[in-house]
Amino acid sequence: MTLVERLLGGDRLALARLITHVENRSEAVPAIMRAIHGHLRDAYAVGITGPPGAGKSTIVDRLTALLRGEGSTVGVIAVDPSSPFTGGAVLGDRIRMQAHALDPGVFIRSMATRGSLGGLARATGDVLKLLAAFGLEWILVETVGVGQTELDILQMADTTVVVLVPESGDAIQTMKAGLLEAADIFVVNKADRPGAPGLMAELKFAAHLHYASAASPKDIDWEIPVLSAEAQNDVGVAELLSEIKRHRETLERAGTLRTRRRQRRRAEFQGLLVEELRTTVERRLRADDLAHTLDEVADGRIDPYSAAASILHRPDLLSRGGGSRD
Amino acid sequence: MTLVERLLGGDRLALARLITHVENRSEAVPAIMRAIHGHLRDAYAVGITGPPGAGKSTIVDRLTALLRGEGSTVGVIAVDPSSPFTGGAVLGDRIRMQAHALDPGVFIRSMATRGSLGGLARATGDVLKLLAAFGLEWILVETVGVGQTELDILQMADTTVVVLVPESGDAIQTMKAGLLEAADIFVVNKADRPGAPGLMAELKFAAHLHYASAASPKDIDWEIPVLSAEAQNDVGVAELLSEIKRHRETLERAGTLRTRRRQRRRAEFQGLLVEELRTTVERRLRADDLAHTLDEVADGRIDPYSAAASILHRPDLLSRGGGSRD
Repeated sequence: MTLVERLLGGDRLALARLITHVENRSEAVPAIMRAIHGHLRDAYAVGITGPPGAGKSTIVDRLTALLRGEGSTVGVIAVDPSSPFTGGAVLGDRIRMQAHALDPGVFIRSMATRGSLGGLARATGDVLKLLAAFGLEWILVETVGVGQTELDILQMADTTVVVLVPESGDAIQTMKAGLLEAADIFVVNKADRPGAPGLMAELKFAAHLHYASAASPKDIDWEIPVLSAEAQNDVGVAELLSEIKRHRETLERAGTLRTRRRQRRRAEFQGLLVEELRTTVERRLRADDLAHTLDEVADGRIDPYSAAASILHRPDLLSRGGGSRD
Repeated sequence: MTLVERLLGGDRLALARLITHVENRSEAVPAIMRAIHGHLRDAYAVGITGPPGAGKSTIVDRLTALLRGEGSTVGVIAVDPSSPFTGGAVLGDRIRMQAHALDPGVFIRSMATRGSLGGLARATGDVLKLLAAFGLEWILVETVGVGQTELDILQMADTTVVVLVPESGDAIQTMKAGLLEAADIFVVNKADRPGAPGLMAELKFAAHLHYASAASPKDIDWEIPVLSAEAQNDVGVAELLSEIKRHRETLERAGTLRTRRRQRRRAEFQGLLVEELRTTVERRLRADDLAHTLDEVADGRIDPYSAAASILHRPDLLSRGGGSRD
């Protein structure tokens, strides 16, 4: 039996192994994704982001418990793109999720950067599909911050929750526009701390202005709600789940969920094409006659634009020199 | 006379117009970069980054004054990749630089994101070359933070200065590894504020550990110095310039400056090739028969990996459908 067949039969170990293939961008990935394509079940993806220390893991933990209480199955992907050098600080937080470690209705996986950040977003997208093929109904994707990579990752979520704490005031000023662009729901966690009411009022005002502005998405009628929570004390998480469900219903009612997923598949495909082209060209530049052109550019003997034009006109540019990937 | 001829003759207006071409990624860019290629003079690029409010602009302003005092010419590029939505918060700070606005030995330009972030790093690299062709001896590139785009931009600098303030403590914890990877010199600015000695001690300790670790670059012998400054009161900036020059001499003595610039041209060229391929493919996907494949992927009728493989095997993939770029 292949790993994919075992995955579709509900084998958790097969799922874990397939995720490792995807994470390492192994040669088997195209064949794996092709094999599961006809078996993707309808999973709803929720992105959860915010600065370090905002309590995202606790919120994910409590959301998981609530969803399990309703009889739904839950997948959790914790992605840490912010530390390409240390290999992922989120990992430590995973320990808290051990309450769910023995629950067969929950599957948890941490992912850190290995090499390119662009690759991380693609790997996360492929892991989402593996979890959907496995049959998990809700998938929670936890990430840190709203840099470009995080935004790429969050684009794969149907609903995005941005978690903030009173202490994150300064950081928020810096990235307020980015936050409004990314968020479907704001949560002010650790709401018992000083500064929480002020932060909430500020976010509500910003959300209201954003709703009225041209930057707000027009495919649904949705003003970003601002919730307060003390996830550690189990306060506010049920309300968060209600709002996530209300956002989901709004997307579904307007037909927007379908349109957005179509757009997402389109963007994902374009990204994949470019990545494949990059791989091919980088192999060519290393392997054969194009290496000479690369040397000339490195030495400054020709300008990169002329060199690129000469290479792109070659009819054999994409012919397969070294090993092929599919 | 062409704009490039006027640039090479020292015409500031021609320089400004050429930068606008580069910033808008106009069709003329390849021809422009080709024309200036043989005329690139030896400019030394210093990157200056740090969180908002760290006083980077003031430091750039004082460094400019010191370099002018030595008779050197200075170009300043202020890049703001952090606010793709608002269009660049750095711009306001530029007002402070007006002290140099009438000095013919100084050229200042702000750049904000227009569209893709990848494009911003490339545009910054091309602007650096325009300034080098114009004959400016020092080029100061100011940017905000150490996200992926900022790191891409800083990779074009020969020496990178990371400016911090006592208030940035929390943010530093989050991105310490990234800071050590990016910095050649640390400056703790606003050093009269509480917390400065502690931050300096912490950075010195981190720099020392980094120096001894495998992550530290081995092509030169350099432990990241940690300087204190109060740029507003003109304290510490002369020491910063000395350290920048010491770093430059260390790079030159070891032959590393040449090697690194070679590597930079190599990476720049690979990035350019991929960007050109992306442009070609995106045009093809919009314009003709490939649009059908894109629709099938968007509808979920075929998986993206199979679709990519079928497209990449087409011999006419890179043939020129719509307008060509060179």
